[in-house]
Amino acid sequence: MNTHQRSVSATADTSVRETHELIASDKVEGTAVYRPNGDKVGRIERIMLDKRSGKAAYAVMNFGGFLGIGEDSYPLPWSVLTYNVNLGGYEVNVTDEQLKGAPKYRSGEDYWDKADANRDSAIYGYWGAPPYWV
Amino acid sequence: MNTHQRSVSATADTSVRETHELIASDKVEGTAVYRPNGDKVGRIERIMLDKRSGKAAYAVMNFGGFLGIGEDSYPLPWSVLTYNVNLGGYEVNVTDEQLKGAPKYRSGEDYWDKADANRDSAIYGYWGAPPYWV
Repeated sequence: MNTHQRSVSATADTSVRETHELIASDKVEGTAVYRPNGDKVGRIERIMLDKRSGKAAYAVMNFGGFLGIGEDSYPLPWSVLTYNVNLGGYEVNVTDEQLKGAPKYRSGEDYWDKADANRDSAIYGYWGAPPYWV
Repeated sequence: MNTHQRSVSATADTSVRETHELIASDKVEGTAVYRPNGDKVGRIERIMLDKRSGKAAYAVMNFGGFLGIGEDSYPLPWSVLTYNVNLGGYEVNVTDEQLKGAPKYRSGEDYWDKADANRDSAIYGYWGAPPYWV
């Protein structure tokens, strides 16, 4: 019996969505994101995958808003996220100032409407992450 | 107005979940899988991501069962899936015989409970796909 299990889905398969090395996309979606000090920054909305390679290009973190209206979406390089067992979510080492300047868009906005190498470079440059596309 | 849009979510952002190069994890989940002749094989349940690299290790295709009970789950290498615009889903070139022999598990079974290099090799070998872990 896993007392840490938070909910039981219709198919009761929450226990099979993670190993030491693998994690299910639908487990990542909705996971909270915290600062190292425990402040909540937001939650992962979804992962944007590179179709050809299957690599996670971005983890989109949502923050603010109400019932999905007026939320800000921050595309984060996958490598920026570190899972923190104690916090029970992802940890991102980011200050308020850093988050303020980070690339973002309004949730629901046509941000991903076309490929944009400049956008990719700007985001990965901002977060100082090695590019996913090489 | 996109007449091909099938449903409107609470955040009405279905239009921003795909570009020519990227696709959202929650768009892949639930997408139907067909044979080249149009026969439906199943649907994608979720993606299993390699935590460290962020690479899609497996797309888990579910088939059969009723209300999530008794379904078979087939872990497929990402590269096995090709999106077919005409079919409106993924295409996998597989015969009944090939599918019968393919590695699978019962949905909800503790299949992903631990890392298993033999399992990885068996699946990628069966599907003749280049390994995700190198």
